[in-house]
Amino acid sequence: MALVVSGVDILGYIAGAITTLTFLPQVLKTVREKSVKDISLMMFIIAAVNEILWIIYGAFRNDWVIILTNAVILCLSLTMIYLKFAYANKQSS
Amino acid sequence: MALVVSGVDILGYIAGAITTLTFLPQVLKTVREKSVKDISLMMFIIAAVNEILWIIYGAFRNDWVIILTNAVILCLSLTMIYLKFAYANKQSS
Repeated sequence: MALVVSGVDILGYIAGAITTLTFLPQVLKTVREKSVKDISLMMFIIAAVNEILWIIYGAFRNDWVIILTNAVILCLSLTMIYLKFAYANKQSS
Repeated sequence: MALVVSGVDILGYIAGAITTLTFLPQVLKTVREKSVKDISLMMFIIAAVNEILWIIYGAFRNDWVIILTNAVILCLSLTMIYLKFAYANKQSS
């Protein structure tokens, strides 16, 4: 097993870390503003199903980086789906 | 070079294809409704920068799957950034 970490590896880790947190600004904005009218529910349903596929893929590959990063994105996607329903009937001020 | 494609490989390709199109429902909804108030601009800026990092990573790895899938997501992210500015001052009906 190679333990040498190249600059390209580090770039991959940075990109992966950013990917994991992509949905966070949307979650924070929605929690703050309690308004979801313009948000696509379908986008986050697709994302959630997709993360489950990635987690299964990571499990088959025994790849904990894939499993854990996609588990974070799954949590954020499920949070957005919850918020979409929770605030569905509310008007923003 | 191994040409054997396993079921796990196929699962990875399916998951990757779905990932590529995750933002599409949001783009379609926004184009249709011309309302972006609830959309996080920061999310799509982070996504766009992140896709550029992934494309650079894919270029170093000479991995066209990474380059092309992230190029599609970059286009969808840039479209959302454009729509956010284009419809910023419009009220939805």
